[in-house]
Amino acid sequence: MTDLCEGERLDDLLIDNMKLIQRPDQFCFSIDAVLLAHFGGVKPTQSILDLGTGTGVIPLLLSARGVTILTGIELNPIMADIARRNVQLNGKLDKITVIEGDYCHVPDLVASGSYDVVYANPPYREAARGYVSPVAGLRLAKHETTATLVDVLRAVRYTVKYRGRFRMIHLAERCVDIMAAMRHYDLEPKVLQLIHSRRDRAAKLLLIEGVRGGKPGIQVLPPVIIYDNSGDYSETVRRWYGK
Amino acid sequence: MTDLCEGERLDDLLIDNMKLIQRPDQFCFSIDAVLLAHFGGVKPTQSILDLGTGTGVIPLLLSARGVTILTGIELNPIMADIARRNVQLNGKLDKITVIEGDYCHVPDLVASGSYDVVYANPPYREAARGYVSPVAGLRLAKHETTATLVDVLRAVRYTVKYRGRFRMIHLAERCVDIMAAMRHYDLEPKVLQLIHSRRDRAAKLLLIEGVRGGKPGIQVLPPVIIYDNSGDYSETVRRWYGK
Repeated sequence: MTDLCEGERLDDLLIDNMKLIQRPDQFCFSIDAVLLAHFGGVKPTQSILDLGTGTGVIPLLLSARGVTILTGIELNPIMADIARRNVQLNGKLDKITVIEGDYCHVPDLVASGSYDVVYANPPYREAARGYVSPVAGLRLAKHETTATLVDVLRAVRYTVKYRGRFRMIHLAERCVDIMAAMRHYDLEPKVLQLIHSRRDRAAKLLLIEGVRGGKPGIQVLPPVIIYDNSGDYSETVRRWYGK
Repeated sequence: MTDLCEGERLDDLLIDNMKLIQRPDQFCFSIDAVLLAHFGGVKPTQSILDLGTGTGVIPLLLSARGVTILTGIELNPIMADIARRNVQLNGKLDKITVIEGDYCHVPDLVASGSYDVVYANPPYREAARGYVSPVAGLRLAKHETTATLVDVLRAVRYTVKYRGRFRMIHLAERCVDIMAAMRHYDLEPKVLQLIHSRRDRAAKLLLIEGVRGGKPGIQVLPPVIIYDNSGDYSETVRRWYGK
């Protein structure tokens, strides 16, 4: 039995029998995290960093894929505490470290060039654009009030090894900004995958992989389609959930 | 009956009952031209320019979509002559003008800012990369020996109206170069569509639309799939051919 604090709830992650403490007034993980955690290959001995880990869902999902050296950085102390308890709850204390801190000041937190792969599921909207949630935790997670795209890329550039990889999920409509900024920070975009809710709709999200010091030339994978024609999760998504 | 010169052949364009003179030792149109000519909306009264028109296939296909004010620029005198005869052969002399000249020196050829939409199906490979055909005409058309991506964008920037559109087909693997260069020339990428030969393969080509003076923010359309699972043209492609 898990001790939940006020406002928390315990959800089934539906992958690898994992459980996840979440707080609906802060930020709950969504399919975005599942998409990102299944994008690209991983090896058990790679050291992996997640910038803005929230509930710790990305490290937990990557540990289910066999990764054993995982670190998550989280600014919001409420979320960092939940992430730590999620790691414990799922018996991953030997594999996942949660650091409470601001990745805009990442040199204070971790060593430079020490990660094989860095993940980010950052705020999608720039500050003062779109609807801003009045709830502080949601605002932090969904809007770029605490970190802009450039802050994310600076933190990646500092933490990732030469020839290491950076993986991010973001809005498809910001594709040009993202690619230009990644190239500027020498995180050359090498793999792109668009996410369409349905086959006949414009892409809502993108998954992108950059390589530090990589040469120009990008592979555009077949898109991920979330829902099939009948409105159920597509075969790709069902496979992640082992169905 | 059409007079063909030595080395020429007469092909059926399969759209709008049009015929096309081509020279297999120079460059024959491919599905790329059909993809580009069906990308984005057109209006009858728009003035449209095609940079490197080859056989004139893009202006011909656009005239079949109802456009009436079309200009094609072609460097290779053999191809410019074929393009002119193709215009005549299909009874489009009142709608399509072919200019023999080098779009790297486009100010010598047409007025600045005078086109609503500019199209380009430029050489895909940079000079000294990939296999270079020993036949002069094919080399001109498929490799960037006469025009680089930057030359194309400079010509577009000069010829397109403020808020006018630029549409291009190119290699998907050059997506980052293309987007960065378009933004640099103030032709903000606004619409992207990937072309996959089959649903489960990486994209080979991309269609991109930029707007001169446009604001950041791109729409990524559902991809075009060329062949269905049985190896036949997909429904989208068959629709263009009226089947």
